[in-house]
Amino acid sequence: MTYDFAQIDGIINARSLAIVGASNAPMKFGSLFTRSQVSMGFEGDLYLVNPNEQEIMGRQAYPDIPSLPGPVDLVYLTIPAHRSMQVLRDCAGRGVKGVIVMASGFREIGPEGKALEEEALALAREGGFRLIGPNCFGIYNPRNGLTLLPGHDFSREVGGTAFISQSGGFSAHVARLGRSLGIDFSAVVSYGNAADLDESELLEYFADDPQTRLISGYLEGIKDGKAFRDALSRAAAVKPVVLWKVGQAESSRRAVLSHTGSLAGSGEVWDALMKQCGVVSVSGVEELCDVFLAFEHLGRTSGRLLVSGGGGGLGTYGADLAEAAGLEVPALSAGSMARLQEILNRAGAVAGNPLDIGAPLIPMEIFESAMMEAGRDPATDVLVFDLAVNFGYDLAGEDGVREAARILAHVKDETGKNVVAVLYSRSNDAGNLYFEGLIRDLTQGLREAGVAVYPSMSRAITALAKLR
Amino acid sequence: MTYDFAQIDGIINARSLAIVGASNAPMKFGSLFTRSQVSMGFEGDLYLVNPNEQEIMGRQAYPDIPSLPGPVDLVYLTIPAHRSMQVLRDCAGRGVKGVIVMASGFREIGPEGKALEEEALALAREGGFRLIGPNCFGIYNPRNGLTLLPGHDFSREVGGTAFISQSGGFSAHVARLGRSLGIDFSAVVSYGNAADLDESELLEYFADDPQTRLISGYLEGIKDGKAFRDALSRAAAVKPVVLWKVGQAESSRRAVLSHTGSLAGSGEVWDALMKQCGVVSVSGVEELCDVFLAFEHLGRTSGRLLVSGGGGGLGTYGADLAEAAGLEVPALSAGSMARLQEILNRAGAVAGNPLDIGAPLIPMEIFESAMMEAGRDPATDVLVFDLAVNFGYDLAGEDGVREAARILAHVKDETGKNVVAVLYSRSNDAGNLYFEGLIRDLTQGLREAGVAVYPSMSRAITALAKLR
Repeated sequence: MTYDFAQIDGIINARSLAIVGASNAPMKFGSLFTRSQVSMGFEGDLYLVNPNEQEIMGRQAYPDIPSLPGPVDLVYLTIPAHRSMQVLRDCAGRGVKGVIVMASGFREIGPEGKALEEEALALAREGGFRLIGPNCFGIYNPRNGLTLLPGHDFSREVGGTAFISQSGGFSAHVARLGRSLGIDFSAVVSYGNAADLDESELLEYFADDPQTRLISGYLEGIKDGKAFRDALSRAAAVKPVVLWKVGQAESSRRAVLSHTGSLAGSGEVWDALMKQCGVVSVSGVEELCDVFLAFEHLGRTSGRLLVSGGGGGLGTYGADLAEAAGLEVPALSAGSMARLQEILNRAGAVAGNPLDIGAPLIPMEIFESAMMEAGRDPATDVLVFDLAVNFGYDLAGEDGVREAARILAHVKDETGKNVVAVLYSRSNDAGNLYFEGLIRDLTQGLREAGVAVYPSMSRAITALAKLR
Repeated sequence: MTYDFAQIDGIINARSLAIVGASNAPMKFGSLFTRSQVSMGFEGDLYLVNPNEQEIMGRQAYPDIPSLPGPVDLVYLTIPAHRSMQVLRDCAGRGVKGVIVMASGFREIGPEGKALEEEALALAREGGFRLIGPNCFGIYNPRNGLTLLPGHDFSREVGGTAFISQSGGFSAHVARLGRSLGIDFSAVVSYGNAADLDESELLEYFADDPQTRLISGYLEGIKDGKAFRDALSRAAAVKPVVLWKVGQAESSRRAVLSHTGSLAGSGEVWDALMKQCGVVSVSGVEELCDVFLAFEHLGRTSGRLLVSGGGGGLGTYGADLAEAAGLEVPALSAGSMARLQEILNRAGAVAGNPLDIGAPLIPMEIFESAMMEAGRDPATDVLVFDLAVNFGYDLAGEDGVREAARILAHVKDETGKNVVAVLYSRSNDAGNLYFEGLIRDLTQGLREAGVAVYPSMSRAITALAKLR
């Protein structure tokens, strides 16, 4: 298809939605997705279609698409594959912009399914609408409340991160985890087998979408190598692009074929293309979200690190990781060095980079002076501090660690230096959630102050290294 | 020194301890360590030494070592470096087996400290006792309750894991995190600058110690290359050895020098030695503890994996990671494949390896049959399952995920196949600790049933790959 911004935009920002297969049975997707639209407050018209029901969740049910009282931008099919064809026929000539086919049982199961998928695609072409999927969830868009992912605990905050995914599970996972991390999305699109609307057009769309500042994706296969290369070059030229690609290994190629019927392609070609376009390659939901956070708080480059903690091992380990990942951990400027030596004139502390404040439980006024000096050091751009929650600070009670977190946020505010905090519990006993609660609370406060927070030094360093 | 098992054993399993610098001031280490012995129930005689106190925490205080009423195996100095020399002199000829010098301000600060360290070593030689440290915490030993790490929330369960560490902070961190993970220790030794007792002798000791089944360490530098090579070969020949070595990067070499006054040595030589001796190399506390868990539950090799989850993305990603890490994810045996196809005859499920059960919320009787079949598959040795806690299973309520966890434990029990569960929350909102509590509870139950649990697919796969 020729890329058409307006049509894709009309689907993603749909003003009306019909759910075919809407249901009162609580464990069915048709019920789950209906509830999601209502709970999440989908702002358009919502039509529920099921020939066997009069009413679904207190709303009128329609027997089929032709009986709907008004036009509909987006039709969502939660019915089995073989029953989808008639509905696709019904959608023709009604101004429908897109149909999402959730069912599996298409290309990914072999020749029979492939024929069905081709039939669906032909019906979409004839009907003048785009097909999303099959074998997918759909679209989550906080702009209009469209929530075609399972659940109703997603955010309605509109942000700048777009995520496209061939896996439905990962699309919901990323949207949900992102919420916890304070990452807001422009949209998340689960597009499954990509029979029609594919990764290339979605890259083009989000490159053009003014709400989107960062484009990310989980990809299993590439439908059209040339189109993808063009779309990726164009997108990466205007916005940061972060991609997670699977299917490099033999067993995962088998899996990709049976999951979304895609051909995974060669790892070497992929790596070269990512490098050429300046795309950030990641692996796993955690790493993807870690990179979102880094972009959110640090922008497109991380710069030279000052690694610090209370205890020599922490900084030594952090510096080791950073340099292994290709990040600079330079010696401090002479002025900072001299002032830190004066401030940290105590047993166990070592002025330098890494910077060892000596112990986690040093007096807070010394901690504040040292961090402020570290924040002002001109030889480094980012201060990474391991904030030992239940080791040391906890000896001084919750107030101690809260004060230390406040100081780190203050240093960022005062000096303008990027600050990254590493914040985790040194134990996670069943039955004791106290530290976990404290950490989440501190994390939220630090993030709101613009400090990126990671649960381990290695995740912090990996995310920073990905920004290079 | 010539390695002497009995003397080191007499220190680690000390029957009497004197804390010099014991204190009533709550924020001092002398107070912290005194409380630790009492709370953790140190089983030997405990003497508190402080010339300025009559009584400390309700116990008699002695002015100095000569005034102690009986012999003492181990003396712990929490006093500053320059005041330590007199105490070392006082220890001579009293049957003291070892003195731990906690203070920093020795070799790591430069020539003046180096002279002081050499003086301390000479006094130890003259006095006939071993020096541990300086610039360290000390020994945690659940066998006798000796707890010379800050805190009193360590386990008294005796296990088979020994951990030696040049970093005091990491020694406490590993001991504490290990407790949460159900890892029990034979001992943890923080040995700092290694002026006398060093990594080589500790390796020899734990190789000989019948309680220790696995030896691990965090190392910044090696004191004597030849001695280390010999000790490591000998230890690795009899027990698994897992080492975390820092100081490969320039900034961390600087840090190592100022942290424990050690020379970090060359990365290439190190890597070659690790490989030659069959030592597992790790990086970071999380990876170290992940490997402990893998050894605990799977033994010395992981074998061929069957990777599974509810949703195609999970298994595809897991298989991708596994093969990239050099693990086998072979096709299933023909019999298992046929039976799984029959059991999982439902939309979205894909029999194979990776194995996609279709969705997280499949009926539990089908889940049980499928997992049991996966457990019996002769082509694979380990079943890795991503147990999606708050995606799908939670729709069926807490009972659903509890039942799924019970089934995984049952599969291990029934089939004898190693089972690894990946268990994490898809969100971690501040203010909602429900899923975290559920996960910790399930994790504990699974671990007690012999199922290794990891918080992400990548940590599971990395740990399994380290066993090879």
